[in-house]
Amino acid sequence: MYTYKYPLTVKAVWWDETKREVCWINTLKLPFEEEVICSNDPVRVAKAIVEMEVRGAPAIGVIAALAVAAYANKLASENSPNVVEKLNEAIDLLWRTRPTAYNLFWALERMRKRLVASAGLSPRSLAGDLTEEALSILNEDIEANIKIGEYGADLVPEGATILTHCNAGALATSAFGTAEAIMRVAWYRGKKIKVIATETRPLLQGARLTVWELVKEGIPVTLITDNMAGYVIRKGLVDLVIVGADRITREGYVVNKIGTYMIALAAKRNNVPFYVAAPTSTIDLKSGIRDVVIEERNPMEVKTVMGRLITLENVKALNYAFDVTDPDLVTAIITEKGVVYPPFEENLRKTVER
Amino acid sequence: MYTYKYPLTVKAVWWDETKREVCWINTLKLPFEEEVICSNDPVRVAKAIVEMEVRGAPAIGVIAALAVAAYANKLASENSPNVVEKLNEAIDLLWRTRPTAYNLFWALERMRKRLVASAGLSPRSLAGDLTEEALSILNEDIEANIKIGEYGADLVPEGATILTHCNAGALATSAFGTAEAIMRVAWYRGKKIKVIATETRPLLQGARLTVWELVKEGIPVTLITDNMAGYVIRKGLVDLVIVGADRITREGYVVNKIGTYMIALAAKRNNVPFYVAAPTSTIDLKSGIRDVVIEERNPMEVKTVMGRLITLENVKALNYAFDVTDPDLVTAIITEKGVVYPPFEENLRKTVER
Repeated sequence: MYTYKYPLTVKAVWWDETKREVCWINTLKLPFEEEVICSNDPVRVAKAIVEMEVRGAPAIGVIAALAVAAYANKLASENSPNVVEKLNEAIDLLWRTRPTAYNLFWALERMRKRLVASAGLSPRSLAGDLTEEALSILNEDIEANIKIGEYGADLVPEGATILTHCNAGALATSAFGTAEAIMRVAWYRGKKIKVIATETRPLLQGARLTVWELVKEGIPVTLITDNMAGYVIRKGLVDLVIVGADRITREGYVVNKIGTYMIALAAKRNNVPFYVAAPTSTIDLKSGIRDVVIEERNPMEVKTVMGRLITLENVKALNYAFDVTDPDLVTAIITEKGVVYPPFEENLRKTVER
Repeated sequence: MYTYKYPLTVKAVWWDETKREVCWINTLKLPFEEEVICSNDPVRVAKAIVEMEVRGAPAIGVIAALAVAAYANKLASENSPNVVEKLNEAIDLLWRTRPTAYNLFWALERMRKRLVASAGLSPRSLAGDLTEEALSILNEDIEANIKIGEYGADLVPEGATILTHCNAGALATSAFGTAEAIMRVAWYRGKKIKVIATETRPLLQGARLTVWELVKEGIPVTLITDNMAGYVIRKGLVDLVIVGADRITREGYVVNKIGTYMIALAAKRNNVPFYVAAPTSTIDLKSGIRDVVIEERNPMEVKTVMGRLITLENVKALNYAFDVTDPDLVTAIITEKGVVYPPFEENLRKTVER
């Protein structure tokens, strides 16, 4: 239906037109197994978001929108009563899955607005409209990522080594990625980049997902533990850092995977550029940093690695999923509408509203 | 033989007077199994150091010294020829086990000096002298740790939360610990401290050893992933940081477990005191930071967790065991001879030579 300028080597979330369902790769099983799951059940998709079968701010926005569309198609085909009410409940359910990533709320607000606008139509026409809206969100995500890749690649020197944290790749979006979009475009343009990927405890998205994606793309990648990032930066092995974001506040605070803050501190200290790659759907002009809820997840994720206990069973553990990087630590924010430099409060608003 | 002011709840390395062997806890199996190994074979002890059955700068100094003594006793009891030559070879072997921790060289130099001084004696008298020297090193380690604990505890506020990295506990020394000595004395004095321990990838000394020791001591401990340290400091959950050291250079650079540097950066940024606890045997006045070799270990340690693969088998990985924290990030260095404040170059020399 849509065609893109670059190949989509990896897709994380997509629409199955035949079944009219949303499909996704279960990232929890990567890189050891490539399990695909499809569903038209918002409860099942909510579970996939909560348990992080699908993760990454853009990806959970897209899957939530497609879940609403799939459910609308299901309700229409079953001649279900109270379709609008049920769809509103589904949006509420998906809204409550995770608190930090802004794209989830952004995408569900769009679906809610379309639902309100088309509420008077037949269930089948309503499902058609919601499917159109969700597919727009999906397509815009991919187009935005490609743009991010192109704007970002201009900033990457020939032969540069890029350090990244967690997975801001295709698997954190519907396809192409945000931080990794930049690596992809730089690579396709023939810049001989290398990537250093942090493993990203507790769920190891770097070791499991970023490594897998980059190997698939043919981009050279070296794995480190999270606590090694500062030393490799200090040692001069890193030319620039690129990470994604789960939410960017109006002041330019970057809320991203736990550990981002310490990498930003090390980059600042050593004059290494620290870039954040994110679509404008991640930028939340309505909130300041005080309004952001940092998700605390089950401490068992910290006390285990891939299900295996690494410490005493009854010890207390904290499990903050995200941290906050101050605007002064960020060199620039790379969006699909261009590269945003400080002062962020002023320039983010201009960019989003452009 | 020796008595101490405080209980030694955990011993990592000790002398078995009956067998005349050195004994240690195999820390690789903690906290799931408490395996004790005894030996008088320097090859076996070298293996224990290389594979990190025993780790922590003071502990590997002590075990290396005791290994030389145990071997001298073995040679004497076997009426072996060429005792002095064999002991020199044993010292050489132990010297080459790990490159970064200074205490290893400090302890082996003492043993070599005593060997030279007593080389003309009978093998039995020589063994007696070397045993005496090694037991002095062992005893001085424990006494130094107790002093570190007492000097350090004066700096710990009532009810403080202390963040620590890796294990600078009893299990990193012969007993009592360095950073944890301070926690122990503060706790015994009735200060209601709490500890936040980083898991410390790749070998998880925080999750496996620090948690185990503190639970045994009854001190409240909370586990975090390494990448969470910055955020908990930024959030105001930490009153002070205390870590150990593997080597401190004459300028005051602190070489310690990988990840220390990023914690120091976060502490500095948030005005949280960052203390280093180490005996003066860790302070290497002979070298500057350019002379220090940072050990690179097997990448498989990074690609696995407790033996289980967490990424693609063939991906490249880096495995620096230590990093370097600049002197300006360090609030003070707590030694058995007192608390050393900046300027470190001047004050470290004064302290060591006192």
